[in-house]
Parts: sequence; structure tokens; C-alpha cells
Amino acid sequence: MKRRLNLTLLTDFYELTMSNGYFEHGMASKIACFDMFFRKTPDNSGFAVMAGLEQVISYIKDLKFTKDDVSFLKSKGVFSEAFLQYIVNFKFTCDVWAVPEGTPIFPGEPIITVRGPVIEAQFIETMLLLTINHQSLIATKANRIVRAAAGRDVLEFGSRRAHGYDGAIYGARAAFIGGCAGTACAISDRDFGIPAVGTMAHSWVQMFKSEYEAFHAYAKVFPENCILLVDTYNSLKSGVPNAIRVFDEVLTPLGVRPYGIRIDSGDIAYLSKKIRAMLDAAGYPDCKIIASNSLDEYIISDLLRQGARVDAFGVGERLITSRSEPVFGGVYKLAAVLEDGELIPKIKISDNPEKVTVPGYKQVWRLFDRESDKAIADVITLFDEVIDETLPYVLFDPEYTWKKKTVTNFRAEKLLSQIFKKGRCVYQSPSLEEMQKHCRESVEHLWNEVRRFENPHTYYVDMSQKLWDMRDKLLN
Amino acid sequence: MKRRLNLTLLTDFYELTMSNGYFEHGMASKIACFDMFFRKTPDNSGFAVMAGLEQVISYIKDLKFTKDDVSFLKSKGVFSEAFLQYIVNFKFTCDVWAVPEGTPIFPGEPIITVRGPVIEAQFIETMLLLTINHQSLIATKANRIVRAAAGRDVLEFGSRRAHGYDGAIYGARAAFIGGCAGTACAISDRDFGIPAVGTMAHSWVQMFKSEYEAFHAYAKVFPENCILLVDTYNSLKSGVPNAIRVFDEVLTPLGVRPYGIRIDSGDIAYLSKKIRAMLDAAGYPDCKIIASNSLDEYIISDLLRQGARVDAFGVGERLITSRSEPVFGGVYKLAAVLEDGELIPKIKISDNPEKVTVPGYKQVWRLFDRESDKAIADVITLFDEVIDETLPYVLFDPEYTWKKKTVTNFRAEKLLSQIFKKGRCVYQSPSLEEMQKHCRESVEHLWNEVRRFENPHTYYVDMSQKLWDMRDKLLN
Repeated sequence: MKRRLNLTLLTDFYELTMSNGYFEHGMASKIACFDMFFRKTPDNSGFAVMAGLEQVISYIKDLKFTKDDVSFLKSKGVFSEAFLQYIVNFKFTCDVWAVPEGTPIFPGEPIITVRGPVIEAQFIETMLLLTINHQSLIATKANRIVRAAAGRDVLEFGSRRAHGYDGAIYGARAAFIGGCAGTACAISDRDFGIPAVGTMAHSWVQMFKSEYEAFHAYAKVFPENCILLVDTYNSLKSGVPNAIRVFDEVLTPLGVRPYGIRIDSGDIAYLSKKIRAMLDAAGYPDCKIIASNSLDEYIISDLLRQGARVDAFGVGERLITSRSEPVFGGVYKLAAVLEDGELIPKIKISDNPEKVTVPGYKQVWRLFDRESDKAIADVITLFDEVIDETLPYVLFDPEYTWKKKTVTNFRAEKLLSQIFKKGRCVYQSPSLEEMQKHCRESVEHLWNEVRRFENPHTYYVDMSQKLWDMRDKLLN
Repeated sequence: MKRRLNLTLLTDFYELTMSNGYFEHGMASKIACFDMFFRKTPDNSGFAVMAGLEQVISYIKDLKFTKDDVSFLKSKGVFSEAFLQYIVNFKFTCDVWAVPEGTPIFPGEPIITVRGPVIEAQFIETMLLLTINHQSLIATKANRIVRAAAGRDVLEFGSRRAHGYDGAIYGARAAFIGGCAGTACAISDRDFGIPAVGTMAHSWVQMFKSEYEAFHAYAKVFPENCILLVDTYNSLKSGVPNAIRVFDEVLTPLGVRPYGIRIDSGDIAYLSKKIRAMLDAAGYPDCKIIASNSLDEYIISDLLRQGARVDAFGVGERLITSRSEPVFGGVYKLAAVLEDGELIPKIKISDNPEKVTVPGYKQVWRLFDRESDKAIADVITLFDEVIDETLPYVLFDPEYTWKKKTVTNFRAEKLLSQIFKKGRCVYQSPSLEEMQKHCRESVEHLWNEVRRFENPHTYYVDMSQKLWDMRDKLLN
């Protein structure tokens, strides 16, 4: 099918009216700083997982208003000729800093920072939010499900319930970063190298005169990695006995071990235990049991608590749509404006104290306890501040400032890496496998209390004294 | 950014393994019939709204395995050489019937029917489900929100929270079919002609020394259709007075009326009434009030019950993700197989009675009462059956068959239109405006009891006697 190649106009219309406004007021090259951050994790998770940066980079690199775009904008009758001329030559020249993909991220801290001419920095808002919100949502959900599976493989099976084509494709990508072992989506294997898996639907079984014949036919064509779907009629009375018969008759003579069976309905805890016993008794203790059907982190945890004998989980709609919370609420706010060579911090005040923004051009640091190697807190500082690991560092709650804690014997890592320097990309995205590994390892640096699903401990995101003082001054 | 043009491989991997299996067993040209249907409406809505057909058509027309696709499949090491050769020349030759976009659809009835060689009919499953599930989900949600707004405009504002790029673009399309008046998404205007709207973000206001200067600057550049965002600091004390001052100073001398003001926070019921009074008193009774901020059908209904003076609603994340139920559970099931010239119905039995499929090659009829012009029921029939409007027709509940109703003085319309005939497209999609109009008019044919949000009346989807008898025989 035909698809638009250039997504420059995938933007809220107001980015364009504002741009035209800045241009007409001679403010096109006024330097502004914007932050992307979020206020709440989905599912009240103890943390979220950053994802989507590679696509943001690709979008920014290819930003270009085509002739068609310009004609369309002209037809709207609200843009000046000079502005339309300006965007024909539009070039992105900002600095961009971002948290690498796979990193645990927390509410309130900048995960992307953009500094440059206001039109350029403002214009990328919609695509930046759209991309990071979507992929971080799915990576976060996938990571929860993968942790619930406690070492068993989780496979992303949701394409048919995704919100559009990119929902499926980039959803599979984000799920892999979050820890999924594979996907059902063939194109995500072709383009991202995420292993695609899949064998048969119920319709395969129904196309043959009997389940036995359907299994026999399948095993004949695919003896290697043979997985049979056993629940079309009755898993225990028909599916598993037929599968065992076909393993015996087709695979064993070839000297091939069966890979597994899959169940997609029924009581998975009960069935998996019964099936395990049947397969073991038949001499197939190595035959895996794969379960699917409306799974998520809660159901998987519960199944495992009940002793379900499942080796891998196929997770569909509840992962690819993050069904329990399908919104990742990242926002993009003005943080500072350069006036006469000086960066003037900008704050958005709200009646709602937690909606007050953190002004200024900033960096984020993660402090790790050297003894336990666990993350203690994140600290937002002014951009040029340095946290000296050799000195005790005083953390304090930005709201209840009397809550203080002095940390020693720690190391501090900057979370924001430079991605673009005056519009030139200076960052090379790691491979997806490296992102997945980075995610797994970074999550291990979090305390169990932050990782649990119910009422996780609130991880500290604090401000440096300098930043807090500056914000306090603006607030008063 | 670079995007893949060809989505042929956006498919679950098992569609490919099954295809290879059918091919190897000489079943490639065996004729099968599949139905897409869904079992439950999102949000327990009384009905859903069909959307996405135009993209399904486009996908099928462009189905083609490229060289890259074939190399990728070859690299998986599980497909036969003969099969890989076969798919190079893959051509879709099926018949496809579908319910037109914008039509109300109900659980259990076929909304798409595909008949043709099993490999082709099976292969399109993933994209067909993905496309229709996504767009029908959003069209259904949009229609609920539009009905809640009771004649006021609803604008789709959700791009930044959509699940990927297509989630935003086709989401805006589906929202328009469901009744939205416009979108914030510029590309959806360029490509689909959905009016894009938008003026300023809070950052515009913050970029200037004062709110007054920001409004003044904006009105200077955009005197026509001027909409000012008044809640950056304090809507009643600062935003609205500054807006009125700018309307007086900039627009009135030009003889231009202001279009409106927008509020994006605070108590919309309270604020909108106060703002209405302020604008009226200042001589701007025609200045519209536009509200946004986490709206959905429930909040809008509630605001209007409280007498909120809002003229248009901007609806973001709760529409574009259908947040309260982000999954549309359409499925695709085998219904019949041609054996020796005879169509053998296929049924999928389940312990769960409502999961038992309706076998056979079928048509769906909607019966309208000629007096009230309201829809009475849908009836699923065998494909060649005809419902004679001149004779009384007996409807009966497929589960509780003693529940009968004889209808007279009715008209019967076929819901499934032919889309492809032996692989050739024989259908011309109407314009989006026509789809929106068709949706609005079709929904008006439903009783209020079916349209209400809480516990809607269950609309009847019955079977013809012939179909019921055939299914009953298969079940026994």
C-alpha cells in the first residue's frame, strides 16, 4: 500500500501557526530551551523505560518541507509568503540531549532537552512526543510483563490489535527493548532483526479432516522447531494426544525433538500442569509449553504463583496497546529563553503544585551507591553543574526541603547524552540487542522496592541546591 | 524520516508458515471462506462504527512480495524453494465483501467476508484485522464523544499521544468518520482534507514578556479566526481580560470579530460560565469558547449537564487511544471450505457458547421498520438467501429460540457490499465527508435505547432459519 515517506507535516497545526508568528515578529532565531518530561508512569509503575530515540533522530535528520507541503500550507491562507519561503529552506540547527533508549526514567526529570532557534525547537514537539510517548509506553509495559515472567520468554503477539501499522512495527521494537524475546510480526524481524515466531492458527487445524491430520501435515513440512496448537477442539482429550502421536510418528523417526505445544484458551494453570505431565510421560520432557490469550503482568504473575508449567508466554493486545493504561503523558515545555546573551529561566506556574515546571537549561544525574551498586536517586542540576563524587552530597526533597539525606561513597552518571550538536547528529544509536541489555542491566540497578508492581517505592528525583534556589526565586 | 513503502510483510509469521504448509500439501488453490467479526463492543457501547476499509483495499491492491521480502523469508530457513518461487508471483484473486465505512456494526455479524484460495484468504488476516480493529475502535469512540457533545464541534487533538505515526494519521481519519469536525494534525488535512485547526501553545505566551504582548503579537499576525489560549497564568484574572483588550485594540479597528478563546485547565464548567459572561459584557457574544484537557464522552456529558458554556471541545488522548478501552477485538475465522464443488460449513466449537462461530458463506441484512424508519434487527443469512420485504418475517433469538417476533411493513438492506471480485476491486470508496454523513444518518436510524452510553439496549443480531438449522446440525 502507498505510504507517505515524509512525515514533516505530522505535526499539530499550532506548531506551524506559532512558527509563522515568531517569524513575522523577527523572533525566528531567538534561542529557546525546551524539555520533554512526564508527570506519571503508566500503571503507577515504579519507573518507565525510555524508547523511541532512534526514530526521533531519523525524523529530525529527514526534516524537510516538500513542495506539496508548502502548497498545502499556502492553500490554508494563513501563512505569510516570507514564512513559506523560509520553510522551504528550513534546516534544523538545535542542540539535542536525550536519555538513551532502555534506560529507566522517572516522573519530573527531563528525558529530552532541545536548545536552539525557537521555531526549530518548537516545531519538533509533536513528533518528538508522539514517538517517545508511544515507544516508552510499550517498552515500559513489556518490561513489566517480562519481569512477571521471571526468566521465561515473552513473545509479542499483538499486531492485529495495534493502533495502526506503526503501532505494530514500532510497538514490536519497543517491546524488544523492554525485554521481549521475539515477535509474531514478520516485518519487525526483516527490518529490526527481532526474531519472528509463529506456526499455525486454529484455521489450519480446521482446514483438515481431523486434528491429527492437521498436525501430521504440519510436522511433515516443519519438523524443525515444530510447535502444535492443541486447543482447537479439546486440549487434554484431543490436542495433546494427537500432538504426541505426531511427535512419535513424524519427528522421532527423523531424530528430531519437538519444540513445543501452544494453548490459547482455557485455564492455563490447570491445563499446563496436566499437559506437562502428559508430555513428560510420553518421553517429551523437553517439549515446551507456550501459552497465550489475554495475558498481562498480573495474569502471568498469578499463573506462576499457581505453579503453571509454562515455558513461554505469547502476549497480544494487553502489551501492544498497553491496555491497562494506553497513554504515556510526556509533555514538552519551555524551560529558558536567551535574552541579551543570558539564559532566562522560564517557569509554568499552576494551581496544581506538581504541574509547576522546572525552569532552566538542565542535566540529570543518577547517583549509585558504590557498595550495593543500586541507584539511590536522580538529581536534576543546572546544565553546567558538576556533581563531585569525592565529596558527600546532600539530597533533599524539593517539596519538603527539611527531608535531607547525605550520600557518600557513590558514583554519579549523567543521564542526558548529546544527540545533535547545532543540528548535526553526534550520536550513534546502539543495536537493539544492546538497548535490551542496557535495559535489563539498568533495571537490575533499581531496588526491588522500586520494581514491584503494587505500590512501588517512589524513587527520588531531586534538584540541586542551585536549581532549587533559582526555581524558588522565580516562584516567589 | 525513512518509512517502509510496502507492508506486505506486516503480517503474523504464522500466516507465512501456514501458507507454506498449504502450498507443500497441494492445497494452495483450495477455496475457503473467512469472516471478520467481533464479539464485544468497546466501552459496552450499543454499537460500533465500521472504519478502515479504504486502507484494506489499498493494502490488498498493492500486495506484493519484493525481492527483499523473499530474501528475508529465505534467510529464515523454513520455507521451501517452491513456495518462495510461488510468492514472487503472488496475486490476490479472492472475492471480498464488506460493510461500508461509517456503518453501525454489531457483535457477531460478519463485517468482512473473504472467499478464495486458502493461502490468499488466510494471508491477509493480520493486516485486515489490524486496519479495521484500529480505525473502528477510534471511529466508535469518536462517535460516542460527538454524540455527547450534542451538536457542538469535537476536534481531534491527540497526535502526541497516539500509538505511532499511523495511529495519529489514520486515527484522525477514523475520528472524522465518527463525526469529528476537525483535527490538530496537519498531515491529515493535507492527505485526507480533514480541516486542521490550531493556534498557540502555552510556550507562545511564555516567549513574550507578558501575556498581553503575546496575545497582541498573535492577533497582529492572525487577525482572522483568532483564537487565544487564556489559561497560561490565570484565565479569569489575566487571560480573558488580556484577550478582550487585544480584541478591542487589534481586531476591532480592523473590523474583524474574534473567533474564540481556548481553556486547557481548571474547572471548565465554572470557568466557561464566567468567561461567557465576561465576553458577552465586553461585546463579544459571538466569541466561541473552546475547551480541552482530558475530555471524553462522560466528562463532556457531565459538563453540559452542569450548563458549561462550551462551543467546541478539543479531545486528545482519550479519543486517539480510546483510553477507556483501547482494544477492538475483531477476529478472522474460517467459515467454510469448498470440497468437491460443495461449500462445507466449518464451525469452531468452544466451551464458551458465545465463542462458537457462525459457519457458512453468509450475507447480513438490516431490517428497518417503514413506519418509524428505525432499524429493527440485523439478520445473518446464507449468502444466496433473499429476505422478501412483502412477506412477514419471523425473527427469533438464536440462543433462546422461543423468543420470536414477526415483523411486517419493513425494508431490508444488505450490509455486505462486494469489494473485490476475483481479486479485481469493484468498489469505489466514497469521500470521507460522505462516510461521515453516512455514519451520522445511519446512527439516527438506531433507537435512542441503543445509542445511550449506560446499559444500552442489546440490538438484535439474528440468524435466518436456514442458517440456524445448518449451524444446529453441525453443533449436534
